[in-house]
Amino acid sequence: MPIQSLASRMDSIQAFHVMSLLARAKQLEQAGQDIVHMEIGEPDFSTPDPITQAGIRALKAGKTQYTPACGLTELRETIAAWYQSHYQVTIAPERIIITPGASGALQLALGVLINPGDEVLLTDPGYPCNRNFVRLFEGQPVEIPVSAAHAYQPSLMDIQNHWCDASKAALLASPANPTGTLLPHATIRSIHGFIEQQNGTLLIDEIYQGLVYGQESSTALSVSDDIWVVNSFSKYFGMTGWRLGWLVAPEYALDALNRLAQNIFLSPPAPAQYAALAAFNADTLAITEQRREAFAQRRNFLLPALRELGFDIAAEPQGAFYIYANTAAFEQDSQALSHLMLEQAGVAFTPGIDFGTQDAAQHVRFAYTTALERLEQAVERLARHLPK
Amino acid sequence: MPIQSLASRMDSIQAFHVMSLLARAKQLEQAGQDIVHMEIGEPDFSTPDPITQAGIRALKAGKTQYTPACGLTELRETIAAWYQSHYQVTIAPERIIITPGASGALQLALGVLINPGDEVLLTDPGYPCNRNFVRLFEGQPVEIPVSAAHAYQPSLMDIQNHWCDASKAALLASPANPTGTLLPHATIRSIHGFIEQQNGTLLIDEIYQGLVYGQESSTALSVSDDIWVVNSFSKYFGMTGWRLGWLVAPEYALDALNRLAQNIFLSPPAPAQYAALAAFNADTLAITEQRREAFAQRRNFLLPALRELGFDIAAEPQGAFYIYANTAAFEQDSQALSHLMLEQAGVAFTPGIDFGTQDAAQHVRFAYTTALERLEQAVERLARHLPK
Repeated sequence: MPIQSLASRMDSIQAFHVMSLLARAKQLEQAGQDIVHMEIGEPDFSTPDPITQAGIRALKAGKTQYTPACGLTELRETIAAWYQSHYQVTIAPERIIITPGASGALQLALGVLINPGDEVLLTDPGYPCNRNFVRLFEGQPVEIPVSAAHAYQPSLMDIQNHWCDASKAALLASPANPTGTLLPHATIRSIHGFIEQQNGTLLIDEIYQGLVYGQESSTALSVSDDIWVVNSFSKYFGMTGWRLGWLVAPEYALDALNRLAQNIFLSPPAPAQYAALAAFNADTLAITEQRREAFAQRRNFLLPALRELGFDIAAEPQGAFYIYANTAAFEQDSQALSHLMLEQAGVAFTPGIDFGTQDAAQHVRFAYTTALERLEQAVERLARHLPK
Repeated sequence: MPIQSLASRMDSIQAFHVMSLLARAKQLEQAGQDIVHMEIGEPDFSTPDPITQAGIRALKAGKTQYTPACGLTELRETIAAWYQSHYQVTIAPERIIITPGASGALQLALGVLINPGDEVLLTDPGYPCNRNFVRLFEGQPVEIPVSAAHAYQPSLMDIQNHWCDASKAALLASPANPTGTLLPHATIRSIHGFIEQQNGTLLIDEIYQGLVYGQESSTALSVSDDIWVVNSFSKYFGMTGWRLGWLVAPEYALDALNRLAQNIFLSPPAPAQYAALAAFNADTLAITEQRREAFAQRRNFLLPALRELGFDIAAEPQGAFYIYANTAAFEQDSQALSHLMLEQAGVAFTPGIDFGTQDAAQHVRFAYTTALERLEQAVERLARHLPK
């Protein structure tokens, strides 16, 4: 069959490497082996009950039609009220566009921003789909190597050094995946100031907003109204499978974003939107805060335990539910190490190659998206099986 | 603000014209006027209860996590079984990719097929989003004028005349929007034969499949396994707001489609997928068939009634829930006529300009997505107010 008939962009859009690990984990489980899953970027908690109940009520009421392309007005207003009450930032509800997951928000944002050949600055390591969203629109991802020495976040100088005439935007994240580190507001401010001078656009992925430990959650919208912010109900609100996110964008882009949303989405999923109306209620927030505390407890166990095992974690993760760890002590390629530990210890984690190329062979990502007892088991097993 | 900073593609991606009509209709309704809505491309029936109940059961069971990127295996198998039992075509479940609406299917298909500059043949009139999906990936939509004389469908010769070295694919529809006409299998066969010789790809939109009147529903997959077919749970199964569709694609494209789906969607909406598992049950199909009969009854009333009013409908619509009518008898631009009838008669329908440029000013689309009594009212009012 004519394999040549596929678009060139598909040559560079790769499957996640962790998929082969997952497939092998499933085989082992089917053969009766117990696997501790620390490779999953999804909370193990299911959707908080008040949200699910709101979804059920909407379905019972027959609310299954298309909503406006940019989402229910009431949901946009609810999110705006949340920015006001929780972060003390005033965002007009019209600037909040409800999307099919944060994936939909990234697609809309890059779809209205990126011309073929435009460069978009990203970090390496970073969320693997970002570079592929850029490629989807024939843009050019430019990956800035970031290191543990700078908490895996770019400095103003990093941005300046990589910015050129073809640069159009930078897409950063806080808390970041796979590293869990935050971008300080002072850094956001200086980077935004520079990019604004260049007539470029700064986008910040805040999909792990709320999942921060030992400090207050924040938003880049406190720094400037002109920053494009991507967010999601998936992580803090435990709504992964519902596929619901949002984009906060400046006034001048709203008409274009609305046109693109009309054409490529028609409507974000309606049951998810009615359910999400309950996300900011006090009873839901009591649950999400409990879960945040559970994540914090897991993190506080896992971080020293992994260091004890010999993983080097020089930049302390402060958010999300990830620990990005250097595996140099084990003198193995991290992909080989991941497969070895899956086979020998029954512990699954993600090789660095899924997040970039820089030092990827010496890094892995642990997700603490499983119960504390399971993390303790994983650490015990790794202690027995890690190569010394 | 820097309006120039948006991508060029957005210059040609327009909002639907019907939106301004809708906004005005809402104003009139708020002022107390009754409006018969015949502009809505969405069934007025809500989701059949067995589907909704399956969705509710899934939510109660906490099934709110990501599914595989190409959808639940069980749903893919269920759709394959439906193709077998209902259309006697054998499709491997792996070839059925579950997507966020048919919109997601169009995006995946064109994303893996279209290089910048590739031409995609479409019809004028046709579904307005299609050309914008092509533009999204920097492809070039080429619109083939189709006329009532050929049931608003292209002939083999039309395709041959518009095919050139830059042509990559043709995207046709049966039943078609806005015309409700079908593509005969003999035409599909000859067009597919030609396109295959040219190493091109034929895609057929079957999202109104099942909604045909006076004849049996069919699928282009009966003609060839190599045709890419886009489908949806929105119309026949009344699941618009859930956002769930599917793509049937040939073997050689599956790996690329899976990679793209992983990156841009992560997962189709989970509640919708669990709900859709009940779509092909006998109790659901009893409901959808009843609704099809209600649509048939509306069509059988509206078609002669519109002709009686002076609308010229030379190509008899056989499917979907649309009637595409020539307004030349009223000696007015169809957009002006739409607005005039909204104001004077309280009847809303869609001007032809939303579906293309060819003779658009002499055409409008009526959707019979409202109850028979309401259609009767609309016809009475139009009889009083149409300019003679």
